Amino acid sequence: MGRLIIDTDIGDDIDDALAIALALNSSEVELIGITTVFRNVRERARLAITELKVYNKMNIPVHMGMGHPLINDVDEDAIPCQCAAADDSIEVFDDKNAVDFIIDTCMTSNDPITLVPIGPLTNIGMALRMEPKLAHKVKIVLMGGCIGKPQPEWNIMCDPEAAHIVMSSGADITMVGLDVTTKCQMTLKQLEAFEQSSRAEVKFLFELIKLWDKAFNFHMPVLHDPLAVAVALDPSLVTVQPMDIGIELGGIYTRGMTVPREGTSVKAAVDVDVERFMELFMTRVAKDI
Amino acid sequence: MGRLIIDTDIGDDIDDALAIALALNSSEVELIGITTVFRNVRERARLAITELKVYNKMNIPVHMGMGHPLINDVDEDAIPCQCAAADDSIEVFDDKNAVDFIIDTCMTSNDPITLVPIGPLTNIGMALRMEPKLAHKVKIVLMGGCIGKPQPEWNIMCDPEAAHIVMSSGADITMVGLDVTTKCQMTLKQLEAFEQSSRAEVKFLFELIKLWDKAFNFHMPVLHDPLAVAVALDPSLVTVQPMDIGIELGGIYTRGMTVPREGTSVKAAVDVDVERFMELFMTRVAKDI
Amino acid sequence: MGRLIIDTDIGDDIDDALAIALALNSSEVELIGITTVFRNVRERARLAITELKVYNKMNIPVHMGMGHPLINDVDEDAIPCQCAAADDSIEVFDDKNAVDFIIDTCMTSNDPITLVPIGPLTNIGMALRMEPKLAHKVKIVLMGGCIGKPQPEWNIMCDPEAAHIVMSSGADITMVGLDVTTKCQMTLKQLEAFEQSSRAEVKFLFELIKLWDKAFNFHMPVLHDPLAVAVALDPSLVTVQPMDIGIELGGIYTRGMTVPREGTSVKAAVDVDVERFMELFMTRVAKDI
Amino acid sequence: MGRLIIDTDIGDDIDDALAIALALNSSEVELIGITTVFRNVRERARLAITELKVYNKMNIPVHMGMGHPLINDVDEDAIPCQCAAADDSIEVFDDKNAVDFIIDTCMTSNDPITLVPIGPLTNIGMALRMEPKLAHKVKIVLMGGCIGKPQPEWNIMCDPEAAHIVMSSGADITMVGLDVTTKCQMTLKQLEAFEQSSRAEVKFLFELIKLWDKAFNFHMPVLHDPLAVAVALDPSLVTVQPMDIGIELGGIYTRGMTVPREGTSVKAAVDVDVERFMELFMTRVAKDI
Ligand SMILES: [Ca+2]
Ligand SMILES: [Ca+2]
Ligand SMILES: [Ca+2]
Ligand SMILES: [Ca+2]
Repeated sequence: MGRLIIDTDIGDDIDDALAIALALNSSEVELIGITTVFRNVRERARLAITELKVYNKMNIPVHMGMGHPLINDVDEDAIPCQCAAADDSIEVFDDKNAVDFIIDTCMTSNDPITLVPIGPLTNIGMALRMEPKLAHKVKIVLMGGCIGKPQPEWNIMCDPEAAHIVMSSGADITMVGLDVTTKCQMTLKQLEAFEQSSRAEVKFLFELIKLWDKAFNFHMPVLHDPLAVAVALDPSLVTVQPMDIGIELGGIYTRGMTVPREGTSVKAAVDVDVERFMELFMTRVAKDI
Repeated sequence: MGRLIIDTDIGDDIDDALAIALALNSSEVELIGITTVFRNVRERARLAITELKVYNKMNIPVHMGMGHPLINDVDEDAIPCQCAAADDSIEVFDDKNAVDFIIDTCMTSNDPITLVPIGPLTNIGMALRMEPKLAHKVKIVLMGGCIGKPQPEWNIMCDPEAAHIVMSSGADITMVGLDVTTKCQMTLKQLEAFEQSSRAEVKFLFELIKLWDKAFNFHMPVLHDPLAVAVALDPSLVTVQPMDIGIELGGIYTRGMTVPREGTSVKAAVDVDVERFMELFMTRVAKDI
Repeated sequence: MGRLIIDTDIGDDIDDALAIALALNSSEVELIGITTVFRNVRERARLAITELKVYNKMNIPVHMGMGHPLINDVDEDAIPCQCAAADDSIEVFDDKNAVDFIIDTCMTSNDPITLVPIGPLTNIGMALRMEPKLAHKVKIVLMGGCIGKPQPEWNIMCDPEAAHIVMSSGADITMVGLDVTTKCQMTLKQLEAFEQSSRAEVKFLFELIKLWDKAFNFHMPVLHDPLAVAVALDPSLVTVQPMDIGIELGGIYTRGMTVPREGTSVKAAVDVDVERFMELFMTRVAKDI
Repeated sequence: MGRLIIDTDIGDDIDDALAIALALNSSEVELIGITTVFRNVRERARLAITELKVYNKMNIPVHMGMGHPLINDVDEDAIPCQCAAADDSIEVFDDKNAVDFIIDTCMTSNDPITLVPIGPLTNIGMALRMEPKLAHKVKIVLMGGCIGKPQPEWNIMCDPEAAHIVMSSGADITMVGLDVTTKCQMTLKQLEAFEQSSRAEVKFLFELIKLWDKAFNFHMPVLHDPLAVAVALDPSLVTVQPMDIGIELGGIYTRGMTVPREGTSVKAAVDVDVERFMELFMTRVAKDI
């Protein structure tokens, strides 16, 4: 059975909570840890633990990681919109930094572990620099980047230096970028399935969706992060192409852009079986039983 | 009747000669001048004059422009492959720089003039800086850039600073980029029409195609530059979208990339009626009568 | 007898007017033209002609050049502070651009010409790109740059791309930078010599000094630009060191910085005989006879 | 009594070994740890432990840190020249990464600790990102940078991103840069004092000096790193000026340059009492008793 660690910026965009839900509903893998990254990592951790509590999985450890990207400046205090749904009684412990948790867990594991970064890559980049051998112990399936259009993608843009470290680390990386994730938007009918569910877990997710919609007004969730989790479960959901991904660290307009180049260091998703993925997601996450 | 000036790096890629041929075969416009740009502008001018001689149009003035981009370094002495077909007896005069020719011709013309740059934008950029009023006297239909993919295009990449000047000049610009031009590749059958023609003009063009194929081994010409000329003749051949085009001047991977942004300063071609264009081109340029 | 063309951004800092005055008071050279550069070139030209009128030298041609740097954006309409002293009745003619004037004058001259740029290098850079042979026809003694400290200097910083073109042109360049010019500040006593003069020319200069002081409140003029003119008259005033000067075109903090490197393409002034220069300047410019 | 941790790239330039020797000979401070950084951190650690063995101080812990800078690429396998003098029988343990050692030691210490980085700042930058509170627990006295001349300095240039993190961390930083360290070169007479010493410790240092001289041929050690240690012992050896130090991360010529700016975040050494420092160093390190 595969083992996953999800590294997440849960709390802003809605897809992180849905991605974690997909992992929790997937019996063929074991979610062995969640780490938080980018800006307010404490509040993100509290929300992640709340989600685990709803799913009755509080045994899964949650560790706070890097709030501050390597170079870019951010506000680490602002509270992400969905954290209004976090359980205030939950205490987040400072016992172990996410970077150390990732290194220690992966380096001592006998079973293969897949890292699924669905936020900026600060934690993963730091871990790979602190323990270069990590690159050969893990698989990475990350949500990030865009290869077909000249536009920076959020996760990479928020910490381009960390992304550069990850992309050039030599690890076995599958990159699930905007090229495929933007095709995976929920329909109104699918959203209604969430609304009408009587399961506590689905009700909780729908509460997060409402908080997110109120803050951003995007209406229909695009399942960027759940697709990365799904690809970790079943790589056949996407078609990948081996290529070398450069991260533009300079540039006036292009800082944080992923530039595909010849070479074979990364498996970049270039197509997705949308229907099969959406059905997998809905069946597992929004099922009403 | 429209009046055109073509600014060209004829001699390397085959499409410049074909673009000039299209203009010479289009009675609804008058080609009032050709200017050469990028690297060996003297040999390019000699080849352009040779083409005019074949078409019996030596009355059209040809002026050498800037061989050296604003910042990038180049070898200005190497002789472009197709210049082997240039008429050695032709003398290229130093009387007037292309930049001055463009400024003087356009600023004193009562009729509207369309500039059709089909090479790096050094001449046009210099002219617009020396005479900013030029931006409001001319239309520009240029071959260059790429908006749908994250890759630098040759003409822009060879002189990004000049491209920045042109794109931000405020002129009425139609940008015919790789997004549309790469769809316009000649077929083997179309190439054979060139080979089998008994007209001297077409024979000359086919000689150039052979020199180009020998040097680069690309086989089937892609009609980048002829499409720009065709759009100057008939804008309805392409669908354009108003956008603001930033030129990346920094960047490790992205220098010379055109980055589309919100705004309305340029009309960027996003689609092309390939069939209608190819027929227009073949009918006019390769006709055997 | 040496012949000079001064390329100036007269009107903002006070030293341009003083530099022109020094040239006009130096019988061993002939000032054969003044060209204006940077932002409002028309008002700068009007002020330059006014100064020539005061010196009864209206036969010296004044030509407007590039108001807009190659890449940097500027406001070309704002009127420099000292232009309040310009003669409104003077008309500035558009007959010939400064770039063409510099090229035509230098390329057709039998005698050697020294270009003395005391503003941003847009005109000189454009001229060198349009006519590369110019590099071997002229000497250049420019005010600009700073080699001993990590700080951008105004003239270079305002048009780094043009400075790059000039520095890499292969011309015989003497660079008079902040390393030497900042040592040449007028004393109160020297300023009083201007105030007390009964000569019309010196009264005019003092009027400009007052306008400048009112606008900027710097009190004591630093003779950056006059030192460049003086070095054109008498190179022995400074100690030079051959070095290669790179212009930083990228950089967050360092765009426009002159970076000295090994090599011998430029003669950079590293020391100055302040006393001898100040006496030369005062004797010639502020003399009361 | 002050407590120091020295973070070093011992093995290439000679001054690291001399700096550690100065700390070991200074009874007013306690050296509580040595961490190695940059390229071959294992061999550097072995050499550091060898030096401690010679001084009979093997109780002081030595930890390997980051061999790879955050972004710049390096060869981590090459063996530094002085490592030929390392004791092969010494095993370097992987028990704790330097970054964790620094964080754990400093965050749990009741006494103030001074970090003395005398190599590239990768370890210190990583530690400050992983534990931002560290910035308020330590003082930092670092060798690096150059504020008076436009030239990159080695330690900063080798990991500009890490330097940026350190400089902008808010820690109490004294920067001992080339402006002062280049004034502290050993004389021939001082070198002879090393050569003629009969003490085992000094003989060991002289062996390192010979290995270094053979590899680099620099002849007279410049005491960059020992000055940083000395300033940690006695801040009065240098005159400091509060300023804000920006690290140029972009730039063609200037990447890795320290650019001083207005502000008060760093105490930059602008002058040094060379005589007093050299006497302190020689008396303590090369004394023959
Ligand atoms: Ca996310
Ligand atoms: Ca072309
Ligand atoms: Ca000036
Ligand atoms: Ca060192």
